[in-house]
Amino acid sequence: MNKPVVLDELEVGMDVPALPGMDEADIQTPCLVLDLDALERNIKKMGDYAREHGMRHRVHGKMHKSVDVYFLQEKLGGACGVCCQKVSEAEVFARAGVKDVLVSNQVRDPAKIDRLARMPKLGARTICCVDDIDNVADLSAAAQKHGTTIECLVEIDCGAGRCGVTTTEDVVKIAKAIDAAPGLKFAGLQAYQGAMQHMDSYEDRKAKIDIAVAMVRDAVEGLKAEGLECDIVGGGGTGSYYFESTSGVYNELQCGSYAFMDADYGRILDKDGNRIDQGEWENALFLLTSVMSRAKPGKAIVDAGLKAQSVDSGLPFVFGRDDVKYVKCSDEHGVIEDLGNVLKVNEKLRLVPGHCDPTCNVHDWYVGVRGGKVESVWPVSARGKAY
Amino acid sequence: MNKPVVLDELEVGMDVPALPGMDEADIQTPCLVLDLDALERNIKKMGDYAREHGMRHRVHGKMHKSVDVYFLQEKLGGACGVCCQKVSEAEVFARAGVKDVLVSNQVRDPAKIDRLARMPKLGARTICCVDDIDNVADLSAAAQKHGTTIECLVEIDCGAGRCGVTTTEDVVKIAKAIDAAPGLKFAGLQAYQGAMQHMDSYEDRKAKIDIAVAMVRDAVEGLKAEGLECDIVGGGGTGSYYFESTSGVYNELQCGSYAFMDADYGRILDKDGNRIDQGEWENALFLLTSVMSRAKPGKAIVDAGLKAQSVDSGLPFVFGRDDVKYVKCSDEHGVIEDLGNVLKVNEKLRLVPGHCDPTCNVHDWYVGVRGGKVESVWPVSARGKAY
Repeated sequence: MNKPVVLDELEVGMDVPALPGMDEADIQTPCLVLDLDALERNIKKMGDYAREHGMRHRVHGKMHKSVDVYFLQEKLGGACGVCCQKVSEAEVFARAGVKDVLVSNQVRDPAKIDRLARMPKLGARTICCVDDIDNVADLSAAAQKHGTTIECLVEIDCGAGRCGVTTTEDVVKIAKAIDAAPGLKFAGLQAYQGAMQHMDSYEDRKAKIDIAVAMVRDAVEGLKAEGLECDIVGGGGTGSYYFESTSGVYNELQCGSYAFMDADYGRILDKDGNRIDQGEWENALFLLTSVMSRAKPGKAIVDAGLKAQSVDSGLPFVFGRDDVKYVKCSDEHGVIEDLGNVLKVNEKLRLVPGHCDPTCNVHDWYVGVRGGKVESVWPVSARGKAY
Repeated sequence: MNKPVVLDELEVGMDVPALPGMDEADIQTPCLVLDLDALERNIKKMGDYAREHGMRHRVHGKMHKSVDVYFLQEKLGGACGVCCQKVSEAEVFARAGVKDVLVSNQVRDPAKIDRLARMPKLGARTICCVDDIDNVADLSAAAQKHGTTIECLVEIDCGAGRCGVTTTEDVVKIAKAIDAAPGLKFAGLQAYQGAMQHMDSYEDRKAKIDIAVAMVRDAVEGLKAEGLECDIVGGGGTGSYYFESTSGVYNELQCGSYAFMDADYGRILDKDGNRIDQGEWENALFLLTSVMSRAKPGKAIVDAGLKAQSVDSGLPFVFGRDDVKYVKCSDEHGVIEDLGNVLKVNEKLRLVPGHCDPTCNVHDWYVGVRGGKVESVWPVSARGKAY
């Protein structure tokens, strides 16, 4: 392992952490690594679940920001389309050929509304959320200007406390305005409860979704009374999809993290009290790091710090190792507690990041491995598309 | 303000948040904005300080990762070269024409050593740090293979607890090995105390640097006794540069954050007990964000969340406003407490990020503004170069 691998980066101006065919041991670190077998099993499992429960699965592209991962989700998991959070991100998926793209967020800036209204010309069904009746006229004007149709979901704040309205009265008022606006089409409801996904207890999570389901049911009935049908009633994440799927109200899931897993999601508990990364889902995403200094006893310094991950949801853990622990993160370094002094310089560790979404967003590449060999090097296609 | 600005991104496949000449109000958010006047004043001030104190200033490129900011530091601040933390990052500066590049870190992986050894061919003096005598033979072999010279600093851990040796005996041993190795040149000492930079109290910081200075002085004398002179004795950051500059031992500063400032640095206190962002340095870096939802009273939702910043050192503050406060950060949103309900949809706020380095590392562009107009759009040249 660690034999010199001379890439041609300097000559070709290309800078990749690995090339297909390379041994996993020769990957340049820090780098995101996907265990392709585990990834494929996760994707297939959620796809099967959704199909068996009569749910569409609009996978959340904001998590991985990768068109390659999306098309794997379409192929192996029957994904019906993608949702993501920003217009610039949605454009990446639409340009790549995704046919059904939801910006599961508000779009208010005039330039972004204009970009959104042009997106159907790329061949994608284009959907966004609305939580303010004042937004309707702007969206309608842009769609008419470009001769396109923007489909709109009314966003319900069912507990996350961010965007979204909180009463059926407001839902109906906005939906009617959308329905009446040229260039727009009322498509249903967006009701993702983001705040409960990471609660440890299954019962606590269920209690929160019960509230959301009641709000959504009331809204669906209120709309029906006005003659408005919901094509999409969307929501559901990795910590809640079984609740929305059996609610009788939701018809679209929007899960993201199940495909990769991370340390913060992994520690929440399933119905039987087991961590969801111990059976329900597999860790498929790793931050590969190398030991770069062993100058002091009891600790090893690795090359993955704050520039290689987000620690907003806690530190990473070292996968498959009980003898060493990632205990500190600074800009460029991680400190590994290694009381037995077992780690050697250049030894590689697989870290499970605290939070997958913002960690993926700092990297340019996913290195896919299978059987110890690099099989794919995929760009993080929508990296940095935050606007 | 907020009149539609139709960029040609979709057509040209280019996705920039602003174009030169545009009004600041039309910048797409979230986006990094540089106040060019403040930036230039900061750069000039530190350059003047270093020159007046007979110090070279090797500016820290790991903070901004921008060749454009570096060349401004060279032009206005007399920077003697750049330091950065990773080989891939160093290559970006060397390719851009920076003539003196220090990787202020250990380089252990064989492929990275090979890349480092090729860097002098780009025309850059190439320097790295060493904290393990076992590293010397590998660096020497690579330099000989490529017919180049790698200059080496012995790294002293003077309190940060990461890489670096802790005794003069070890310093001398490694320095002698470097001095004897073909292809290598012993260049001096790296002694940056990273752990004390953010301590609030000036006196607490001074006490930590006193320890560092004593260690470095002992090492310099130990080396001199063996006939080894230090061309570079480097260290010093935004929270300590006045201590190293007056130590009589250090001769190179390595400051980074002074140029941009951030919330975490800004709150440390100077000698007179004033925050350093209230006189010593100006906030030149802002994360521009827009209000996207006002659906609930008392709060506004903005478009800058975890994908647009790092919150490892705390949340950002809203620049120039006492009436509103950034109180919560999720993946794609920020929650602004707005008890007076003064904010309007599409209103823009300038946030001062908690920690500039990892925040800059998630963005692709710096939008330079002067007098309310966009003057420059610079790439974050070494973004994501973490290996």
